[in-house]
Amino acid sequence: MFGKQSGAEAVKSQRGRSNAVYFFPYEKIMTNWTGVPLNEAHNFQVRKLEISDKSKGFVELLQQLTVCDAISDENFEARFQELRSLGDDHVICVIEDTTCGKIIATGSVFIEKKFVRNCGKAGHIEDVVVDRDSRGMQLGKKVLSFLADHAQSVGCYKVILDCSNENKAFYEKCGFKQKEIQMVKYFI
Amino acid sequence: MFGKQSGAEAVKSQRGRSNAVYFFPYEKIMTNWTGVPLNEAHNFQVRKLEISDKSKGFVELLQQLTVCDAISDENFEARFQELRSLGDDHVICVIEDTTCGKIIATGSVFIEKKFVRNCGKAGHIEDVVVDRDSRGMQLGKKVLSFLADHAQSVGCYKVILDCSNENKAFYEKCGFKQKEIQMVKYFI
Repeated sequence: MFGKQSGAEAVKSQRGRSNAVYFFPYEKIMTNWTGVPLNEAHNFQVRKLEISDKSKGFVELLQQLTVCDAISDENFEARFQELRSLGDDHVICVIEDTTCGKIIATGSVFIEKKFVRNCGKAGHIEDVVVDRDSRGMQLGKKVLSFLADHAQSVGCYKVILDCSNENKAFYEKCGFKQKEIQMVKYFI
Repeated sequence: MFGKQSGAEAVKSQRGRSNAVYFFPYEKIMTNWTGVPLNEAHNFQVRKLEISDKSKGFVELLQQLTVCDAISDENFEARFQELRSLGDDHVICVIEDTTCGKIIATGSVFIEKKFVRNCGKAGHIEDVVVDRDSRGMQLGKKVLSFLADHAQSVGCYKVILDCSNENKAFYEKCGFKQKEIQMVKYFI
């Protein structure tokens, strides 16, 4: 199985990066058990999270990443509105496979305002995941690019993230370099 | 040179962690060039950043950490108010040596709101620095404790930070464990 991405990629919104929505087609070329090619066409939409994405498998996708129990509609809406009120300071990117109406990749970035670096801003990327059935199509790279572009567009001097050693090579391909180590203290 | 910290440490505010202010005395026992002990008494105040801290060496302290040019009063106030409007979601801790009215340690924490972990929250600690002339008095530990306590008090399930390999042992003494690696992409 291998994939080929169309050149006619995007009509990006003119309203600024944080409102950017773009589509791109993708043709997954598979063979059936007799070796006959079966073309599987996809249309992907890269955009910000919408409240209706809960019914498109957004929470189930996060469950592939870490602990994430079912979230009630009420709690989902409350958190969604809370994040939306932060505007450009907290953006969640999703990729929807519009062929089947399913969210298949996501990641978030929030903007930290500092005094250092001349009152600079840093983007923190978190919770990046691509659906296990949709890997190998560079969707993770699309998500990262969307998030990094957003951070840059709002004036960040850098964007950072933490990852396992296993995923280091992937992030290097996306233009990241290892810098420090991450330390954690759990309360529960 | 060695230091001794008094037992009568703190009267913590009853108004909640994020408003906590406490004092503790510290006796730095030094010897002069003839070996005669010279006791140097300090009174430290651990609290949230105030706008007047700019005139107490707060920016100069940050300059020991990373690039941080002089900040105009106007820009400082604008950033200060912007951060204050975030309330408990962004807290900067400082330690003032009230004997000389100087800020000698700082660190910040901001609260990220997630969908994972049942709409959980994670605290991100950034920009921790102790004045080079005030090291060895466990002030860094006090700052971290203030920030981690704050994160826990607002319901975070964890607090994280990035550091160099050199500083790993210090953070381990503060109850942190290494988990992942930090990746960065600079825009400037």
